[in-house]
Amino acid sequence: MTQIEDAKKGVITKEMKHVSKIENIDIQKLVNLIANGKVVIPKNILHEIDGCGIGDGLTTKVNANIGSSSKLEDISLEVEKAKIAVKYGADAVMDLSTGEKLKEFRKEILNAVNVPIGTVPIYEAGVIAQNRSGSVLDITEDDIFNAIINQAKEGVDFMTLHCGINKELVSKLKDSNRAMGIVSRGGTFLAALINHTNQENPLYANYEYLLEIAYEYDITLSLGDGLRPGSLQDATDIPQIQELVNLGGLVKKAQDANVQVMVEGPGHVPYNQIAANMQIEKTICHGAPFYVLGPIVTDLAPGYDHITSAIGGTLAAVSGANFLCYVTPAEHLALPSLGDVKEGVIASKIAAQAADVAKGIESAWTKEKEMAKARNNFDWEKQFDLSFDSQRAAGYRLNCNIKDKDMCSMCGKYCAIKIAKDIE
Amino acid sequence: MTQIEDAKKGVITKEMKHVSKIENIDIQKLVNLIANGKVVIPKNILHEIDGCGIGDGLTTKVNANIGSSSKLEDISLEVEKAKIAVKYGADAVMDLSTGEKLKEFRKEILNAVNVPIGTVPIYEAGVIAQNRSGSVLDITEDDIFNAIINQAKEGVDFMTLHCGINKELVSKLKDSNRAMGIVSRGGTFLAALINHTNQENPLYANYEYLLEIAYEYDITLSLGDGLRPGSLQDATDIPQIQELVNLGGLVKKAQDANVQVMVEGPGHVPYNQIAANMQIEKTICHGAPFYVLGPIVTDLAPGYDHITSAIGGTLAAVSGANFLCYVTPAEHLALPSLGDVKEGVIASKIAAQAADVAKGIESAWTKEKEMAKARNNFDWEKQFDLSFDSQRAAGYRLNCNIKDKDMCSMCGKYCAIKIAKDIE
Repeated sequence: MTQIEDAKKGVITKEMKHVSKIENIDIQKLVNLIANGKVVIPKNILHEIDGCGIGDGLTTKVNANIGSSSKLEDISLEVEKAKIAVKYGADAVMDLSTGEKLKEFRKEILNAVNVPIGTVPIYEAGVIAQNRSGSVLDITEDDIFNAIINQAKEGVDFMTLHCGINKELVSKLKDSNRAMGIVSRGGTFLAALINHTNQENPLYANYEYLLEIAYEYDITLSLGDGLRPGSLQDATDIPQIQELVNLGGLVKKAQDANVQVMVEGPGHVPYNQIAANMQIEKTICHGAPFYVLGPIVTDLAPGYDHITSAIGGTLAAVSGANFLCYVTPAEHLALPSLGDVKEGVIASKIAAQAADVAKGIESAWTKEKEMAKARNNFDWEKQFDLSFDSQRAAGYRLNCNIKDKDMCSMCGKYCAIKIAKDIE
Repeated sequence: MTQIEDAKKGVITKEMKHVSKIENIDIQKLVNLIANGKVVIPKNILHEIDGCGIGDGLTTKVNANIGSSSKLEDISLEVEKAKIAVKYGADAVMDLSTGEKLKEFRKEILNAVNVPIGTVPIYEAGVIAQNRSGSVLDITEDDIFNAIINQAKEGVDFMTLHCGINKELVSKLKDSNRAMGIVSRGGTFLAALINHTNQENPLYANYEYLLEIAYEYDITLSLGDGLRPGSLQDATDIPQIQELVNLGGLVKKAQDANVQVMVEGPGHVPYNQIAANMQIEKTICHGAPFYVLGPIVTDLAPGYDHITSAIGGTLAAVSGANFLCYVTPAEHLALPSLGDVKEGVIASKIAAQAADVAKGIESAWTKEKEMAKARNNFDWEKQFDLSFDSQRAAGYRLNCNIKDKDMCSMCGKYCAIKIAKDIE
């Protein structure tokens, strides 16, 4: 039984109880949201985790991507990244490894942290094909489904699967005049495969089989946007929206088959197009949770893309996105370091909190009110406790080398709060 | 003659020509905007700078605050901060010094960078009063106007003056139930003075005299928001909006007296209240340029307030703000270091660019399109050239230690762009 099937039958699972409690949401309300496909709890039946709710009516969640590449493969480093991501508040971790040892790595990650783990199985299929015949063009249908089944058996909780990119879309893409073509790795693998074999995308052609596997392990499908824009000028174009329309149909099939499903979204989007992108996903994809990467609102800030995507992510979450995939300062340049992972998670947590405040979520406001009180009382320890990065905040204070409780190096003896108190 | 007086008479100044050229805006359109008070060009007649336009129809501008405090006073360090701020794109610099040597420092800053320099003269008045009698409560009307006149003669281009905080507002503040009271330093000085003397705010009572001084040197008034909120829960409350209403009246008087004027705004504002704050300033303050600090959209990120304010600043600029005051990672904790200044400027530049893209400003889009082209061509040098921080971006690439032009450590041999090109 999957969470959505249970919900439809009115059965309350352990995971639903957990989510209801930590989110402070009425259990019946939550059950209805899950039954209607508006909330998912990604948790493979074989994976021992508490469970985390993603979707409407809940706080905004943050995912951190980690994993090796063919140029950088250090298992202990990547495990450390997963731990740091969770320490700073990541609600889920995706393993995007494409190195040789991707299987060993996945096993370590699944045991290292108590959060849902996501993967992109087409990567494993690509690595297998590359090793076998020297080209990802030789990915077979079996490679793809074997990777999915193996990962399902290992306990992966959610999987990015680019089921919506089909022959028709790929053939039309040539006329689209995009500046950047396809920038999704999974999307490119599948487009290359379609072009090479002149056959349909196996994930699209055999979607019902995929649903059977997902149902068996209660894997949450994360329908990938293979045609997401790679630059601002490609945003919200016909290929992107046509793929979203395809995904809308696939969402319905999954929900009807009692498979939990969410949808992935862009990417690089001008700020003024973000709200429309979020709203259209909700209408086309039957209210399924929206999982966005960024969106990045300018391409001029490599080295600072955690900031460009915190800007886009806040507006996205306010406008309907439920799950923010972090972007680190290393994006577009390199695999992130431990420090980059931390910066990326914190930037996304800031976006999530800002959005939750804007949406009036009570738990978000409670913390804000506590911070105002701590500031007004010059209670530095409490301020640090409430901070996303207590250590960094405390470090600034420590460097000031000022003993007076009601003073910092910024205002010195002319502190507004202190003077205002003195008047009273 | 001031810029606004010239514009009303149809006289085109050297500064207008400069702004028209760098902003690629029709000169007659610009002259009309200045005549109507919708654009200002802050430039003291005694200060040799090119001039910079701030207001509707122009790109979003960024200000960097620097300056000593009573606890940290190092002239050469602060001059270096001003230079770094301008290097990374600050369009103006404010000297907020409150240390003993604030006069010497101001002179150095005025000569160090070719951008408009702003000050908060009440700080100098406060330091003088403190030195004379040990308390900022002893600020006199003469202290304030002497500071303004002296700074005018030295060539300061724009001045933050909290003219709108009057006896009535201060008396009502007690009933407002604010979490944080007053957090503007200038606002607190004046509120303390009003309470101490039971007299009206000299800047409010003698506003016509202030206009005469501003007119003589063509100083742009930046009407300060002494009652800006200090926490999210205080945002957009009655004291804040009542002060804005006062400022609206003062804007009209300044524009009628041929004095350039802009208005300062919050502060700490929940994301869902930002657009309303921008729109109400435009209607109440006769279209005067809006100069905002942040806004910060969550208080839980000390050490990362450059990010919280880049999020708020983007939405503010999209909704009508014209001038973003940077916030550094050190905000609420300490005076910023050189590195903090750089981070603060870049975060604000990102917000400004994202907003200008959203507003469809052509020069902003041109750079975005060039970046997409450079990325698609694996032209790394061009990517770095177009970046807000070329050195940081290049550093990531360098650390990858990868020679292949079409590869980075993130995707290794599985680069989407490369595979997509291979298909073609």
